[in-house]
Amino acid sequence: MASDKVRRPRAEPPKGFRDYFGAEVTERKAMLDAIAGVYHRYGFDPLETSAVETVEALGKFLPDVDRPNEGVFAWQEEDSDWLALRYDLTAPLARVAAQYRNDLPSPYRRYAMGPVWRNEKPGPGRFRQFYQCDADTVGSGSVAADAEICAMLADALEEVGIPRGDYVVKVNNRKVLNGVMEVAGLAGDDKHAERGIVLRAIDKIDRLGPEGVRALLGEGRKDESGDFTKGAGLNPEQVEKVMAFVAAGDAVKSELRRNAQMSFGLAVGVYEDAAKTLERHSFDPGANRLDVLEAEMWNSSVLGHLERLVQTSAIGRQGVAELREISELLAAQGYLADRIVIDPGVVRGLGYYTGPVYEAELTFQITDEKGRPRNFGSVAGGGRYDGLVKRFTGQDVPATGVSIGVDRLLAALRAKGRVGGSSEGPVVVTVMDRDRMADYMAMVGELRSAGIRAEAYLGNPKNFGNQLKYADKRASPIAVIQGGNEAAAGTVILKDLILGARIAESATLEEWKDRPAQVEVPRADLVAAVKRMLGQ
Amino acid sequence: MASDKVRRPRAEPPKGFRDYFGAEVTERKAMLDAIAGVYHRYGFDPLETSAVETVEALGKFLPDVDRPNEGVFAWQEEDSDWLALRYDLTAPLARVAAQYRNDLPSPYRRYAMGPVWRNEKPGPGRFRQFYQCDADTVGSGSVAADAEICAMLADALEEVGIPRGDYVVKVNNRKVLNGVMEVAGLAGDDKHAERGIVLRAIDKIDRLGPEGVRALLGEGRKDESGDFTKGAGLNPEQVEKVMAFVAAGDAVKSELRRNAQMSFGLAVGVYEDAAKTLERHSFDPGANRLDVLEAEMWNSSVLGHLERLVQTSAIGRQGVAELREISELLAAQGYLADRIVIDPGVVRGLGYYTGPVYEAELTFQITDEKGRPRNFGSVAGGGRYDGLVKRFTGQDVPATGVSIGVDRLLAALRAKGRVGGSSEGPVVVTVMDRDRMADYMAMVGELRSAGIRAEAYLGNPKNFGNQLKYADKRASPIAVIQGGNEAAAGTVILKDLILGARIAESATLEEWKDRPAQVEVPRADLVAAVKRMLGQ
Repeated sequence: MASDKVRRPRAEPPKGFRDYFGAEVTERKAMLDAIAGVYHRYGFDPLETSAVETVEALGKFLPDVDRPNEGVFAWQEEDSDWLALRYDLTAPLARVAAQYRNDLPSPYRRYAMGPVWRNEKPGPGRFRQFYQCDADTVGSGSVAADAEICAMLADALEEVGIPRGDYVVKVNNRKVLNGVMEVAGLAGDDKHAERGIVLRAIDKIDRLGPEGVRALLGEGRKDESGDFTKGAGLNPEQVEKVMAFVAAGDAVKSELRRNAQMSFGLAVGVYEDAAKTLERHSFDPGANRLDVLEAEMWNSSVLGHLERLVQTSAIGRQGVAELREISELLAAQGYLADRIVIDPGVVRGLGYYTGPVYEAELTFQITDEKGRPRNFGSVAGGGRYDGLVKRFTGQDVPATGVSIGVDRLLAALRAKGRVGGSSEGPVVVTVMDRDRMADYMAMVGELRSAGIRAEAYLGNPKNFGNQLKYADKRASPIAVIQGGNEAAAGTVILKDLILGARIAESATLEEWKDRPAQVEVPRADLVAAVKRMLGQ
Repeated sequence: MASDKVRRPRAEPPKGFRDYFGAEVTERKAMLDAIAGVYHRYGFDPLETSAVETVEALGKFLPDVDRPNEGVFAWQEEDSDWLALRYDLTAPLARVAAQYRNDLPSPYRRYAMGPVWRNEKPGPGRFRQFYQCDADTVGSGSVAADAEICAMLADALEEVGIPRGDYVVKVNNRKVLNGVMEVAGLAGDDKHAERGIVLRAIDKIDRLGPEGVRALLGEGRKDESGDFTKGAGLNPEQVEKVMAFVAAGDAVKSELRRNAQMSFGLAVGVYEDAAKTLERHSFDPGANRLDVLEAEMWNSSVLGHLERLVQTSAIGRQGVAELREISELLAAQGYLADRIVIDPGVVRGLGYYTGPVYEAELTFQITDEKGRPRNFGSVAGGGRYDGLVKRFTGQDVPATGVSIGVDRLLAALRAKGRVGGSSEGPVVVTVMDRDRMADYMAMVGELRSAGIRAEAYLGNPKNFGNQLKYADKRASPIAVIQGGNEAAAGTVILKDLILGARIAESATLEEWKDRPAQVEVPRADLVAAVKRMLGQ
């Protein structure tokens, strides 16, 4: 009949959105709970704002102005405000800090966890809803606040299962970058575009190498595909000033090597080891359990080097002094450069950061799609942004904070085998006799009361094979069976499905059926026997 | 200057949205974690769908067609689909169940927790984003699935802190309601409107009483304000048939009383007690620890009564038989009518339910805004809906599930003093000497390493009074103080702020300063002394 040809809705989520099942949900939750525990210990309080904000309150900008077309999901209320889904957790924090400025403690330490939305073109592994996990301190201009967040980030990574030595928190300061710009003659308001190109070029050092960055600082660079990227147009002298900064790591390495050659006595070995270790790990001083002394030498050497580079710039000198203070505050709490290193290569986007910036990088290697080993890379980042609350109040409110990329960190934990594996399926009580459902439910009730995850098969019980297939799909450790004979004898059969599956790998179904991976026990012993089989 | 007069954004969330701070977040989370633990034990797996669905997948209807103007937040993608925020967790489940029908285990037990959005007029205590916490079984037509959800609901309530006797899960069956309609001559397709009015009238029995319902079944009813609500227009005989159903509770009560009068010997006391208890609790058989025997009498009496009322309707008889089976399955697991009762008064909206419906009601009393005691009321509800997945696939997929009203249940726990109270503020290390920040951070680091929530004061340390005010605002239990003298002596001062606050209630600030609520201890004993003061 024509009237039956109703068009049915498509059973799929919107493009760029996805569903999370079972362990995907619980593993993320366990990780976030562990991080929340660390944030709590540091005195941070949870804040949960709603998903929806006014477009006015969110502002039109996103932190990364590298992608100005990055959008939000927005709609207009009837005859009223434009509303939008939050694109991060910082903009709502700025709104809350302004709205409740007379009620909140100051400084206000808060953490927030939850989904954010980006109206971007979705791609492989790139979703339009994803989790963020932030901690921020609003109302403190002290670099102690920045140092604290770096320490907390290190603690959080260790808490979720990234061992010390497998991560490094890199710290830089936008003021040092500004100092370098000033030294290179790029300080004026009319040099905004050039500064942007320079910052983006520095940010690409890992990918392009020194020559690529040098080209971008000068006239420009043609990439492998032939596309040309216009450069900042700096003259050779300017280029060298910026490159000296970019190459600060290399310079420190040479310095340590020179010292090793010049030194004698007890210190020789230490310097030589430090130089060798740094050599071995290329630009990455935090990788693989650097000896603490070596690491400290790295931080103080880098600071000394940066100081020389920015010596004619007041803002640059202030930036280095702040980094030194951060380094000292962290050292006083036992966070040495094996965990937190000064790294002039960290830029962290271009948007609103005004002081210290930081980034957590995982230093262990994974194999990429093409089978090549590569470092896992960044899983968290943040910094000081002193202008966000000012949008609302007109008053400067200093703030600093970090955002953990939840999905990336979870992927890292999975790569390290730190989550997953033991998905705990339920004991399945099968239904042999539909009329005795109450008996089966009673078994399930007893198991649950004993704290054992359990369920009765609630599908059509006619085909017993389907029940075992169901138990298999649920990763059930045990199937409980009670047919008429067992009921009459007052017993139940327990099938050890884990052992059964192992046996089945090397046997036919027929053989498997009579294997000892199944026992018959008195009905009264059900709970005890299940516990034994579960190894409890 | 005119150019400075930038219009600043308003620092407020959109109307009908709100922020949740500190304990509001952690208390809800603790409650949801406890419920998730119960759901897990019952074999339910978590599912997290995204906040955004296509309008097509959501469908235009909401479960409660009583309010057809209830809307969703929706917007159109560029040249593409209309998207919307989910208004509940059931519609996305139906989409997932259809999309993954070949991959998911069947039956599929899933739980979901998260915010949903309603584009409704906000009001006091009525928000446009709120949490739901659902559990559903998709793909089982067995009433064992309904019974299981009722048992799980009871367990979940007890797990979060509602003691047995303070709640009751009421169960009814839409088929019984349909049977009553049939008996009253309201079965035909042309009687749709009348049936709607009748169901809504029954749903209002608690508020309007029998006479109000009777009026709505007949010509209509004028309320106190003078507004007239049109009735179903039933004739007196029809009205009496429906009212017999509505008054089933009363009828059972009389029956029990009659039995008590007729009985003799051992049974007399039992019947009399049962009748008295039911009398005492009016319509509410589950309130306050009914003796199990009394309670079971209630369930079987109600079922017998309903059976007689619908005896000429096949669908009605089937409905009663299902209720009887549910009751027996639950009894086999130890869930007797002191926790789960058959209650013909439960209607649960008018939308998509097709079989058993259930509702959890808290039976303890609270004081309303006008100081009158009233029952807390419903905190969860659900039922069987067999048509939702069919929208996508064209095939019948039976399903049943419950949704817990997270905010209401949390409010109930607060009313019972089951959450809150001990908000754990951090130990605050004050800053007496800005130049020794590293020392203060070291103290904080030691405390945190010992698992103690702690922080240094990161605001401007100049005014020490502000630091103590801050500690007070943070509900800090202890302030740690080390000025120059203490530093020289190698000591720290610990101020017991909880004791201090108690003393301060009956003393001036000057007196308080020299109270014994403060001790000076060696710096090396900081952690041990703080632990002692915290009673750890």
